[in-house]
Amino acid sequence: MTAEISLREIGADEFGRVWPFFREVIARGDTYSYPPDLGFEQAQAMWTAPPARCFVAEADGEVLGAYRLAPNQIGLGDHVANGSYMVSSAVRGRGIGSLLCEHSLDEARRAGFAAMQFNFVVSTNTGAVKLWQRHGFQIVGTLPKAFRHAQLGPVDAYVMFRQL
Amino acid sequence: MTAEISLREIGADEFGRVWPFFREVIARGDTYSYPPDLGFEQAQAMWTAPPARCFVAEADGEVLGAYRLAPNQIGLGDHVANGSYMVSSAVRGRGIGSLLCEHSLDEARRAGFAAMQFNFVVSTNTGAVKLWQRHGFQIVGTLPKAFRHAQLGPVDAYVMFRQL
Repeated sequence: MTAEISLREIGADEFGRVWPFFREVIARGDTYSYPPDLGFEQAQAMWTAPPARCFVAEADGEVLGAYRLAPNQIGLGDHVANGSYMVSSAVRGRGIGSLLCEHSLDEARRAGFAAMQFNFVVSTNTGAVKLWQRHGFQIVGTLPKAFRHAQLGPVDAYVMFRQL
Repeated sequence: MTAEISLREIGADEFGRVWPFFREVIARGDTYSYPPDLGFEQAQAMWTAPPARCFVAEADGEVLGAYRLAPNQIGLGDHVANGSYMVSSAVRGRGIGSLLCEHSLDEARRAGFAAMQFNFVVSTNTGAVKLWQRHGFQIVGTLPKAFRHAQLGPVDAYVMFRQL
């Protein structure tokens, strides 16, 4: 299956194909700070309105995962990119997160970014933390109890960073 | 003079009184990541459009400094506040930054926030770093060369944090 997965950029008009698993991921309240009941229009704007860009991984016409690429700051910090990633729970364990991450690093380099930063990686999301570390990110900061985990209550969030 | 300084919240309609020194601060390109040529309307929106709130310190009808208070994340991270501060260069050394900071901590507590975070304190702005440390903030993260300083080139930025 993995060989058939392709990645491409989408516009706002296709965000509806991302929304089913996006909504499912944030509804769990264990990995993203987005409000668990965030609406479609707000999610669509955050992920597709410039300067944000949205990319999807798909196979057999089905969208399996997506990421958002944007400058992490405006102005004198806009050489550092920010990435956000969502994978459909139906395809966990197939390396979609890795594919998305590698693609985002390439796209960030192509767009001229010098580094990439994640502002808010939930510390208890150990799968994600290890995945980003395998892709060259380091924990450069710890935000004490900055995330209200739906099951665990307040837990730390990490700032992660790598040069490109 | 200090005894005459008062602090209050303003709306978008009064942001024009903040703009002269706001513009001067960002034009220097040594402390804020905002584009040095940021326009009035964008600055006004970022500092006064809800959920952001803007407060000013004034004396004898003159605005000496201002700060922005807002949630640092939406959703499950919105118990952590974010603060941004600007002081007119004409009144440096009169403790306006300290007054603004103390007031912002009180307002953040009053609004129900549990902590406050600064996402991007320029490491070479040692006066500000020491000021925030005196007010209970700790450096919890370092972003390597994340700020393009107008004179010094790429320098580190700090993430600073304190419980309330």
